[in-house]
Amino acid sequence: MYRDGATRAPMKWWGWGEESISFTHEGKPELAPFIERHLELDVRRPGTRPIAFGDLEVPPSVLPAGLRSDLEDAVGAGHVSTDEHDRVVHARGKSLTDLVRQRRGDLGRVADVVVRPATEEEVVAVVEAALEEDAVVIPFGGGTSISGSLEPEPGETRPVISIDMSRMDRVLSVDATSQLARVQAGVFGPNLERQLNAQGWTCGHFPDSFTHSTLGGWIATRSSGMQSDRYGDVAELTRGLRVVTPSGVLVVRPVPSTSTGPSVREMVLGSEGRLGIITEATIQVRRVPPERTILGYLFPTWADGLAAMRDIAAGEASPSVTRVSDPYETAFSFATRTDPTPVDRLKSKALQTFLKRKGWDLEAMCLAFIGYEGSAAGVAAERKATERIAKRHGALCIGSSPGELYDQKKFDTPYIRDFLLDRGAPADVSETSAPWGELQTVYDNVTAAGHGAFHQLGVPGYLMCHLSHSYHTGACLYFTFAINPPADGDALDMYGVVKRAIQQAFVDSGATLSHHHAVGTEHAQWLEEDISGPGVAMLQALFEGFDPGGNLNPGKIVSGRTTHAGPDAG
Amino acid sequence: MYRDGATRAPMKWWGWGEESISFTHEGKPELAPFIERHLELDVRRPGTRPIAFGDLEVPPSVLPAGLRSDLEDAVGAGHVSTDEHDRVVHARGKSLTDLVRQRRGDLGRVADVVVRPATEEEVVAVVEAALEEDAVVIPFGGGTSISGSLEPEPGETRPVISIDMSRMDRVLSVDATSQLARVQAGVFGPNLERQLNAQGWTCGHFPDSFTHSTLGGWIATRSSGMQSDRYGDVAELTRGLRVVTPSGVLVVRPVPSTSTGPSVREMVLGSEGRLGIITEATIQVRRVPPERTILGYLFPTWADGLAAMRDIAAGEASPSVTRVSDPYETAFSFATRTDPTPVDRLKSKALQTFLKRKGWDLEAMCLAFIGYEGSAAGVAAERKATERIAKRHGALCIGSSPGELYDQKKFDTPYIRDFLLDRGAPADVSETSAPWGELQTVYDNVTAAGHGAFHQLGVPGYLMCHLSHSYHTGACLYFTFAINPPADGDALDMYGVVKRAIQQAFVDSGATLSHHHAVGTEHAQWLEEDISGPGVAMLQALFEGFDPGGNLNPGKIVSGRTTHAGPDAG
Repeated sequence: MYRDGATRAPMKWWGWGEESISFTHEGKPELAPFIERHLELDVRRPGTRPIAFGDLEVPPSVLPAGLRSDLEDAVGAGHVSTDEHDRVVHARGKSLTDLVRQRRGDLGRVADVVVRPATEEEVVAVVEAALEEDAVVIPFGGGTSISGSLEPEPGETRPVISIDMSRMDRVLSVDATSQLARVQAGVFGPNLERQLNAQGWTCGHFPDSFTHSTLGGWIATRSSGMQSDRYGDVAELTRGLRVVTPSGVLVVRPVPSTSTGPSVREMVLGSEGRLGIITEATIQVRRVPPERTILGYLFPTWADGLAAMRDIAAGEASPSVTRVSDPYETAFSFATRTDPTPVDRLKSKALQTFLKRKGWDLEAMCLAFIGYEGSAAGVAAERKATERIAKRHGALCIGSSPGELYDQKKFDTPYIRDFLLDRGAPADVSETSAPWGELQTVYDNVTAAGHGAFHQLGVPGYLMCHLSHSYHTGACLYFTFAINPPADGDALDMYGVVKRAIQQAFVDSGATLSHHHAVGTEHAQWLEEDISGPGVAMLQALFEGFDPGGNLNPGKIVSGRTTHAGPDAG
Repeated sequence: MYRDGATRAPMKWWGWGEESISFTHEGKPELAPFIERHLELDVRRPGTRPIAFGDLEVPPSVLPAGLRSDLEDAVGAGHVSTDEHDRVVHARGKSLTDLVRQRRGDLGRVADVVVRPATEEEVVAVVEAALEEDAVVIPFGGGTSISGSLEPEPGETRPVISIDMSRMDRVLSVDATSQLARVQAGVFGPNLERQLNAQGWTCGHFPDSFTHSTLGGWIATRSSGMQSDRYGDVAELTRGLRVVTPSGVLVVRPVPSTSTGPSVREMVLGSEGRLGIITEATIQVRRVPPERTILGYLFPTWADGLAAMRDIAAGEASPSVTRVSDPYETAFSFATRTDPTPVDRLKSKALQTFLKRKGWDLEAMCLAFIGYEGSAAGVAAERKATERIAKRHGALCIGSSPGELYDQKKFDTPYIRDFLLDRGAPADVSETSAPWGELQTVYDNVTAAGHGAFHQLGVPGYLMCHLSHSYHTGACLYFTFAINPPADGDALDMYGVVKRAIQQAFVDSGATLSHHHAVGTEHAQWLEEDISGPGVAMLQALFEGFDPGGNLNPGKIVSGRTTHAGPDAG
């Protein structure tokens, strides 16, 4: 179902990605037994599918005629849609909570209209019309938010406009001297890379959502990608901005660094539509590297893997990917191997024998990926320097095929949630960052909290983790968990118990509520514990002062007024 | 004059640095003729000194008895000072405008009291007392602001408290695993490095003001230092923060990266006291590198120097210093050489002959410094990779002695302003940043604007520039200028004409109003042209909403209310 000049199909209204793609255990002989063992879930039993679209009760669109006419004037009648399927696709993001509710037909407050502007002027006209008629505007990139950034507030009585940015998808220019590209915010990851690659450039931003998310969405949520160790998080990539706001078009100049008061650029980053609609960004680009490789390594233990990544970050080499899985994620990774050839099976056996002979505990070992990019000489030097450190921590290089496989499959992971939900088991991710010195404690606390929640609920559960990004002073820990609730249990309630336990362990351990998945509504309850009361008050002052009518994606990040206390309140 | 447990003398109330240190042309045989030639100024003629302190008319301190008593309760009577010299030292920063007015005895609205808290609790008590009595608080680090960030608003009728942070000067702890140090905000540069070096660490932040400025001041103004190419600007170094605000103590966790809405950390950076008093920061530190060297290079032309720095920034090596002077600054540098030995003179002659034989235009050539730090092998590799690029642009390495000299003398430059002011000639700096592709245009426009101003005023003037920091997408250009007004001309007015012409050329050319000297009051008039009207409105919303009484250093960065226009106003 392609509409209105969109160059791609919309995502499933009830799940991740395209209708034609889904995850399967077939061809992965170890996966079903693995899931059976850990979640007591028989994946071969018939699943429970989402409610049929035709059976959904879609709330009617409440769109005043004047507003509709203004919107049609703004973007053209063909780009103003009140079609039910369109509205349901734009109703929410893809958090686990979103998926479960959509599948159940619990749609909440669906946007009244989807508009698709093609130019900044059209966005200005839409925002003007919305402010004039006191409507709510919610920008929509790829719709991959897993923090509840896209749903109207329950009980919103004003008309709600979802601004789908996907028609604004062009790389406008590349300044080769400055290594800067002017890009429209609605471009999806693959299209961005295609346009840049054609001129020899790359943006280098590859979040798991890459295929289905947009540049504007990355900026609005402070996204990070798998190669951000080298290319920088989106906050670093984003130099200039154009944002349609209630005060006019904000223009942030693409200067490399500036001392002009609190950074307005950094206020837009992570603003989730609360300050305006991002229409364009000037982003840092790099030449497509002549060499690029991701190698697999094994570490004897999780502590070894963490220590290696820390020492690599403190050293002089700068690999593009530094990722190490804990033993539980390592076991899961091995369980998802596709049917191995007899040769592979032999190799694997030989490796196991070799490791056992070296005294490794195969239950404790950890799979890691380290990526290198640049000139051939640069890659060789980086690899040498990095492996010297890794080997000090017991690493064994297992070559490039696991890395290639990981590289090919990295964007498929989100489909697993739908596969498990089809079978009644909610699974989700929670990620954080902390200083190197705190990582093991954060990990231990989160693991204890997760397993404590499984125990409290009395359900089988699985929790696994990887370190996904390294910085000079710390790293991101990325947790994945799944539970198998009883048939008579409320999957969403039970999921909530686990999710809350993990998030609470983050902030209780001095870590942040999210490294790169934003706040939305689903993380908002931990915001004050993370950034402190005065931090929340600063955000509140900014949002309320800049958007006094609360027309810009209200209720996200912070909701309601904070009480200003005295200076001793912290 | 040491007071109240301060570990150092205050700066001159009328000029830069310590009373006992001043710049001189003596022992620099080429300098007086150089200045004579370019500014028509005879530096050997007796200078004009500032008004004597005893002749100053210091406005009386207006401090309600209740507030004085609260402040004495807060920090102890011995740390509440209404001493005239103390108040005059804290009256302003060190902008050229500040210096000229101080020297004339035009003191403006001097703070009524200087308080010196020793702990965060004491800062809280001071801020509480100030809010209760509707007083104004202005944090004071080293007092080196050259943008007018420290002066009370003219006509301020409320009591004004200068909070001198210098007693809070300790490195509280170093987390070696995380490479993070918790540091009190009032520590001066040398003391910070001394405490860190003792444990084998460095912060690596060396602005020109290093000797006389504090960590808190660096953060409040988004400072950058000469080795920031490697260590990062202060915005990158600063991970965690504690700030006393009207809403309590803001605590920013020292996590390496986070996605928690617009960055509160980045709001404090550059806030110039408008959001609160920074009491502590957790900063990124690095091991003191085993090798460190700064080498001198000559480039045939300015365009060659710029192109080399650009290509170095795009390459795989990351030197710690990348600095190249235009021909005018190169000539000035050579003119400040101390009396050369006969051997030096011979060497210099030989070099000139060599360059002439190579076809170089000695008037066009540019002096550059490139610094390398790290392991011996790392430094060798970085140097090799960097010099390969530099040589492609015609560079000639002139060895380590010029670099060593630059390294030794780098903190002395600000004293030159006093030397010239003593002789009636105002001199100052203006710096900016822009994308690589725009740098030459920015340079040309600024040069034209500066010389246009000299011409308009009909005074001799000199303008010179260096590139001081390189980034992936652009660089900082740092301009220095001096004029020699006639005896009957108003030096300050004439200075203003030149300063405004240069700043206007920055923003007209797409560059920023300042790369690392902040906004204060002196750059505020260009803020809207730089960050656009909605950007100013965002800052205004933040400041007014968070500090509704306007008690925190009011009037800095933005002043007065902005009018909110419609979304098409940009």
